Amino acid sequence: MSVKDQKELQNYMDFLLPLVLDAGKELLTINSTDDLKVEEKSSPRDLVTLYDKKIEKLLIEKLKENYPDHQFIGEEETADKKNYTPQLTNSPTWIIDPIDGTNNFVKRMPICAISIGLTINKEQVLGIVYNPYANELYTAIKDKGAFLNGKKITTSEVTEIQRSVINYELSLATISTQMCNLYMSRLNYIIGEISGIRSYGCAALGICYVACGRVDAYQADALYSWDVAAATLIAREAGGYIIDSSGKPFDLMKPNVLVASNKKLADQYLERFAKADKEN
Amino acid sequence: MSVKDQKELQNYMDFLLPLVLDAGKELLTINSTDDLKVEEKSSPRDLVTLYDKKIEKLLIEKLKENYPDHQFIGEEETADKKNYTPQLTNSPTWIIDPIDGTNNFVKRMPICAISIGLTINKEQVLGIVYNPYANELYTAIKDKGAFLNGKKITTSEVTEIQRSVINYELSLATISTQMCNLYMSRLNYIIGEISGIRSYGCAALGICYVACGRVDAYQADALYSWDVAAATLIAREAGGYIIDSSGKPFDLMKPNVLVASNKKLADQYLERFAKADKEN
Repeated sequence: MSVKDQKELQNYMDFLLPLVLDAGKELLTINSTDDLKVEEKSSPRDLVTLYDKKIEKLLIEKLKENYPDHQFIGEEETADKKNYTPQLTNSPTWIIDPIDGTNNFVKRMPICAISIGLTINKEQVLGIVYNPYANELYTAIKDKGAFLNGKKITTSEVTEIQRSVINYELSLATISTQMCNLYMSRLNYIIGEISGIRSYGCAALGICYVACGRVDAYQADALYSWDVAAATLIAREAGGYIIDSSGKPFDLMKPNVLVASNKKLADQYLERFAKADKEN
Repeated sequence: MSVKDQKELQNYMDFLLPLVLDAGKELLTINSTDDLKVEEKSSPRDLVTLYDKKIEKLLIEKLKENYPDHQFIGEEETADKKNYTPQLTNSPTWIIDPIDGTNNFVKRMPICAISIGLTINKEQVLGIVYNPYANELYTAIKDKGAFLNGKKITTSEVTEIQRSVINYELSLATISTQMCNLYMSRLNYIIGEISGIRSYGCAALGICYVACGRVDAYQADALYSWDVAAATLIAREAGGYIIDSSGKPFDLMKPNVLVASNKKLADQYLERFAKADKEN
């Protein structure tokens, strides 16, 4: 990436950061669950609140004002349009999840985050994940490293599955029988070997936790681009390895994602998942 | 409980709180994983650090100084004595986990806590769970309610398993084949019905999260008294229902624990676990 491009990305970051921090501040003012105006989208698991909509609208408005030729993919905007699947183009595209981990947010569990990624020519080039409750701001620009509150972060040095802790997003097993079989079958293949398992209920932060070495791997199938657009860049810039859980290249627009501290560890998970998927 | 007893318990709380807050402050000063001096006890999952030992020693010393006739059960002291199983007596007994969630602590995941419970006549009467990283102090005295940072907390109002999120401590499935079968078999019975699943890797906080409504249930078998002595009192005082996962009464010295927001929800989990255990 040229110096000119890097400068441009830094300008985007400088413009976006205050907006994200302000949106986070607004989340901190919420006193009661009653203020959230929780609605169910497709199931008790799939929730949206007043704040998801408000923050997405605000961010998109401000970005559009400054960058009128840019494209936007937002979780709530997409949900509002029936039978609409967003397509990624070569234009600069902001991919926004106003609150990732809405279920945690609704229950006042402080593991949820504002997530914004930017792609140019379909490549991930900038990512911000901000958890105002924990005062944790994860940022990355392509080729410039990953940072937590301005301090450089790197993935763990764990290379053996037996010593690894994986953040395995089991809640997604509740979506359908097919997903349940996939998740449980893979879990059966790894549970006897790994050192620990976590489920935090927030993809963006779960992946950032790999980036800063709090867990050694993250896995979830059937996610959306807005769940991972920022965090997978952050993890990659922190030294992590990102791949589709089937072993194919990672597809940002259809994320079945395995994020691991390094390729060696990823390969061991992939091997087990392949066996599980074959039997499933 | 008499007013005199209540006053005595409040005195214990007043003496203990500054000690716990100071110990928490010390945890916040740690800058690097190198400072922790991590040792493996029985497996890569079973860790102890310099700080577990130091904090337990400090707390027991100070409590002994003030209450020389009291008894103590501490995680690290117990681990140091081979083939020793602590017994609960009628004496006032402080049950201490200096750092619950040591694996999170080692990986700098800010979900770990100092946990101290007190029993008198084998009954749980006082509990403190303190997570200095999140600045969350959970406290309870028997019959006086449960508090998070001084604010009264209550469990969620969720009564249907289909709308519930459970914190299911799957990492314990990695202990042995027997535990793996038990955990996986129960998981198979609930995964298709529940609304979400979490694993935070810290029993004391996991149970406190039920107390304050962040999750609707917590389940883990094969825990130790120090993991749950404080948190189960906190959850009970917040309106929660605590029972052995087999449906028998909860045994503090052999905790196979189900904590639920209420009895109605607990019964639905117990019914599924009973079916799973029968087939297992």
